[in-house]
Amino acid sequence: MKNTKVLIISASESDLSVMNNAGKILEEFGVEYEMVVSSAHRTPERTVDLVKKFHNGGGKVIIAGAGLAAHLAGAVAARFPLPVIGVPLSSGVLEGTDALLATMQMPPGVPVATVAINGAKNAGILAVQILATSDSNLEEKLIEYKQKLAKQ
Amino acid sequence: MKNTKVLIISASESDLSVMNNAGKILEEFGVEYEMVVSSAHRTPERTVDLVKKFHNGGGKVIIAGAGLAAHLAGAVAARFPLPVIGVPLSSGVLEGTDALLATMQMPPGVPVATVAINGAKNAGILAVQILATSDSNLEEKLIEYKQKLAKQ
Amino acid sequence: MKNTKVLIISASESDLSVMNNAGKILEEFGVEYEMVVSSAHRTPERTVDLVKKFHNGGGKVIIAGAGLAAHLAGAVAARFPLPVIGVPLSSGVLEGTDALLATMQMPPGVPVATVAINGAKNAGILAVQILATSDSNLEEKLIEYKQKLAKQ
Amino acid sequence: MKNTKVLIISASESDLSVMNNAGKILEEFGVEYEMVVSSAHRTPERTVDLVKKFHNGGGKVIIAGAGLAAHLAGAVAARFPLPVIGVPLSSGVLEGTDALLATMQMPPGVPVATVAINGAKNAGILAVQILATSDSNLEEKLIEYKQKLAKQ
Amino acid sequence: MKNTKVLIISASESDLSVMNNAGKILEEFGVEYEMVVSSAHRTPERTVDLVKKFHNGGGKVIIAGAGLAAHLAGAVAARFPLPVIGVPLSSGVLEGTDALLATMQMPPGVPVATVAINGAKNAGILAVQILATSDSNLEEKLIEYKQKLAKQ
Amino acid sequence: MKNTKVLIISASESDLSVMNNAGKILEEFGVEYEMVVSSAHRTPERTVDLVKKFHNGGGKVIIAGAGLAAHLAGAVAARFPLPVIGVPLSSGVLEGTDALLATMQMPPGVPVATVAINGAKNAGILAVQILATSDSNLEEKLIEYKQKLAKQ
Amino acid sequence: MKNTKVLIISASESDLSVMNNAGKILEEFGVEYEMVVSSAHRTPERTVDLVKKFHNGGGKVIIAGAGLAAHLAGAVAARFPLPVIGVPLSSGVLEGTDALLATMQMPPGVPVATVAINGAKNAGILAVQILATSDSNLEEKLIEYKQKLAKQ
Amino acid sequence: MKNTKVLIISASESDLSVMNNAGKILEEFGVEYEMVVSSAHRTPERTVDLVKKFHNGGGKVIIAGAGLAAHLAGAVAARFPLPVIGVPLSSGVLEGTDALLATMQMPPGVPVATVAINGAKNAGILAVQILATSDSNLEEKLIEYKQKLAKQ
Repeated sequence: MKNTKVLIISASESDLSVMNNAGKILEEFGVEYEMVVSSAHRTPERTVDLVKKFHNGGGKVIIAGAGLAAHLAGAVAARFPLPVIGVPLSSGVLEGTDALLATMQMPPGVPVATVAINGAKNAGILAVQILATSDSNLEEKLIEYKQKLAKQ
Repeated sequence: MKNTKVLIISASESDLSVMNNAGKILEEFGVEYEMVVSSAHRTPERTVDLVKKFHNGGGKVIIAGAGLAAHLAGAVAARFPLPVIGVPLSSGVLEGTDALLATMQMPPGVPVATVAINGAKNAGILAVQILATSDSNLEEKLIEYKQKLAKQ
Repeated sequence: MKNTKVLIISASESDLSVMNNAGKILEEFGVEYEMVVSSAHRTPERTVDLVKKFHNGGGKVIIAGAGLAAHLAGAVAARFPLPVIGVPLSSGVLEGTDALLATMQMPPGVPVATVAINGAKNAGILAVQILATSDSNLEEKLIEYKQKLAKQ
Repeated sequence: MKNTKVLIISASESDLSVMNNAGKILEEFGVEYEMVVSSAHRTPERTVDLVKKFHNGGGKVIIAGAGLAAHLAGAVAARFPLPVIGVPLSSGVLEGTDALLATMQMPPGVPVATVAINGAKNAGILAVQILATSDSNLEEKLIEYKQKLAKQ
Repeated sequence: MKNTKVLIISASESDLSVMNNAGKILEEFGVEYEMVVSSAHRTPERTVDLVKKFHNGGGKVIIAGAGLAAHLAGAVAARFPLPVIGVPLSSGVLEGTDALLATMQMPPGVPVATVAINGAKNAGILAVQILATSDSNLEEKLIEYKQKLAKQ
Repeated sequence: MKNTKVLIISASESDLSVMNNAGKILEEFGVEYEMVVSSAHRTPERTVDLVKKFHNGGGKVIIAGAGLAAHLAGAVAARFPLPVIGVPLSSGVLEGTDALLATMQMPPGVPVATVAINGAKNAGILAVQILATSDSNLEEKLIEYKQKLAKQ
Repeated sequence: MKNTKVLIISASESDLSVMNNAGKILEEFGVEYEMVVSSAHRTPERTVDLVKKFHNGGGKVIIAGAGLAAHLAGAVAARFPLPVIGVPLSSGVLEGTDALLATMQMPPGVPVATVAINGAKNAGILAVQILATSDSNLEEKLIEYKQKLAKQ
Repeated sequence: MKNTKVLIISASESDLSVMNNAGKILEEFGVEYEMVVSSAHRTPERTVDLVKKFHNGGGKVIIAGAGLAAHLAGAVAARFPLPVIGVPLSSGVLEGTDALLATMQMPPGVPVATVAINGAKNAGILAVQILATSDSNLEEKLIEYKQKLAKQ
């Protein structure tokens, strides 16, 4: 894993089409990131290893997207002391209601910053906002982004 | 960990009053079990260790009870090849709806045998039923149990 | 009925396309099973007879899949002392929410091991896991299955 | 079983306080009824026997009240060719939402006439209405009942 | 209005494709019925008149189908002393959840016999069952119907 | 009925404790109103009469509050050409979710202006706002009310 | 902004296809209106300005339509002393349930008159009804509209 | 407003008992913060001013807690380019389901980092985690916090 600031983890290949929207935003803002597929249920050890390596490499924010009984963001948050952003995905017949609750209703002590169902784009913006708390250049870009948003 | 067949894991101390009902049933049927408190989010490594030791010691069935974004049963099922029974608990304002979906909506490949919200007693019976598939003495007791149930 | 270990009951012909996924898993693991269509509401006596014959023939696990007011797994569990796995199916406009609650919310004394909505594949794996509690060969296969799952 | 026209079945003793409201209405209208406790899950054969005896004795309407995965009305409707009225009861943390769907979402061919959650009183009135389709005396009383209702 | 025993009211033309299933069952059982379109909200007085004329003509059972804030069955039940069967229809984005609650959750004193969402066929069967409480010929046909159902 | 501008209808006596909050606001703003109890299901004709008399007397706005299958606002809106405000009340185990949908999901052509569950106070304010569209004195008072609200 | 009585605000361009139905009704009744796109989240200041200008210009009613976490109607109601009608829109996987609650569940003091999900047509009618409380010509048209509705 | 890094805004006085838990965590970690009560609906301009002053003063993270149609976090996020954490509160009969959706389902471009219903404590931890992305001392404390959590 390279020395990136943001790690995007998708629970499965099929989630990439949505989760790519987080990556696009990070590119747009010039934030280096890495994107991997790893599951809390099918590859639990790999997920733990990815989190540890990312942390040891100086990583700052993790974005985790999963559907159904979406444990990925929570499993990551259990091992990572810095911000974890959860994206509930609408796979399955319950349209993401299951993923929403499984991502957001974390117990006291282990937060997950949850965005809207399928809200990968907002997850990317939130990651930028977090990094911008110590990067006035990024903050400037976010202010411009808000202005562009208003003009559309 | 002793050489028990069933392990009951509760996500927190406050869950014990409900989860004890699983233990009572196992005692009633003469099945040895152990009961521990360990969280998928606050003590993730300890949870993984408990599961591995239990498996190495010849354990057969794990019952996991948790509330809110209840990842415990799923986290256990990700590391245990034998049956995992999940008990969604009604802690919090959503009355267990969150725990229900977070426990039951597992992705293909990693099942959790989910019982009713707060259904720890049924989790105990299900564990006995599973062991009874290779223990005709237990099966006999289950048939008697059904008869007693009918007489009440 | 042959001397099989697992019986799969679907509430209607239209449920077979989903419920076949349970059968495929059992074949993959080399577990003999039988698959029948019988309803708790349209053929209640036949369902009762199937359960009794299966039990008398030494059957160990029943998988029951139904949609709507899904009573099949519960009706089976009322007459079978060994594990019953329920698969809530998403037929109808409520997308399986009705079947989920009707399958899972069983009263104390009569558990149904419920898997995800349309989770027939996981029902098959759970049946294998149950049989593997007394079959080290099956347990070995499940450990390999978990490893394959991780590599995909 | 006496030669009554209406049979009220409650799934458990604890349901009687609500289900008694059905009986009170039948008494108020002078309709003979019998009230029993029998479960679709704990005493399935007894429930089937009660239904058959009631039918053979010339019984006309069955009222069935149950909570949780409320299969009682459906199990009765599977064996009774005349009207079955289902009363979803609010036992458990889901406040009767589970019972509502498990009672009402019956498949084509086997209807259950479902009333409101805990609506035992209305179940009694509906039973009277059904009998009144061939009893002008009862119909007269129902018209008076509506008038009294309006005056309160 | 002819001297029919069953009146089917649909809230709008677009509901007829579903509500026709009630009519088909009544024809199959040889029960005379009439089918009209009338709304509790757009044609409230006409709905009241239809109910009164039907009652004066000796009508016995009304089936009312509506979607959204489905008040039709309740508005009919407020004016008709004999059984009213409500069919919640799945028009609109909430897929009939709104109609279900608006049809079923009637206050004490004014029951509506509610069937499943879009369950017009079962509404027809329930109407036949109600009439069969005083018509042994119809009861015989219902017993045969149950047998045919089991053979399919 | 006096020559009042606003009529508040509560479906039952037990709703008055909540619905009184609408009256208090109208008094606070010096708007004359009348408050009656009348049900869409138990006193349907009386409800229709009240609406007609109120309309003939020059009434401008009706506030209707009901719980459960809350048809009152809709039944009123079907007969009144001017604004009808619906207040869903949280009576019963579903805590007003049923009333909310039964009040708000009106079909095209017959709107009900729905406020929050138990939102009788806001219903009163909304009635004042409606009258204020042609009464600059009332509008002035509403602007002051907003300022007082901000200061609390 | 012209001297119009009704302002329709849509949260985004994609909402216009639904929100146009409000405009069509206003045209049908000969009520002047203006239609703008402005968001509570992307163009908050512009939204505030539009509301103020509309109010200063003598505007009487605002219709606001938004999906998802639909704050638009509430943000408008916070700054406008006269009636605000909210239209929850069904964009996104939750089909408008989110917009419904975000629009309707306003706190005491700041009402939003909420219509059905996607109920822009009824929002238009409600705006006409509000204006008709001081315009007997409009009231006459509404009475005719109700009659036409009944004839369709 | 002092030169603090975190601003906690509660929508009303009654929310303070829950929102104080965010403040306690910030104190525990030695992070300066300010706590104010301001509503998006009752004091919209004051809320906007508070956000602007906080931003101009170098503030980094805002925590906003509200119940019902909880627009506060969204209204803040519309004006603040850095991270906004939303806490849905369980005031009212819907137990926070309304606040959850109104807080979390933000449209693309304007994220709110949502925590669990009533999860003010986790909101505080998340704020610390965000600041810790550029403060190794805080990160150290978070690692210790995780260790203490595991020991309890």
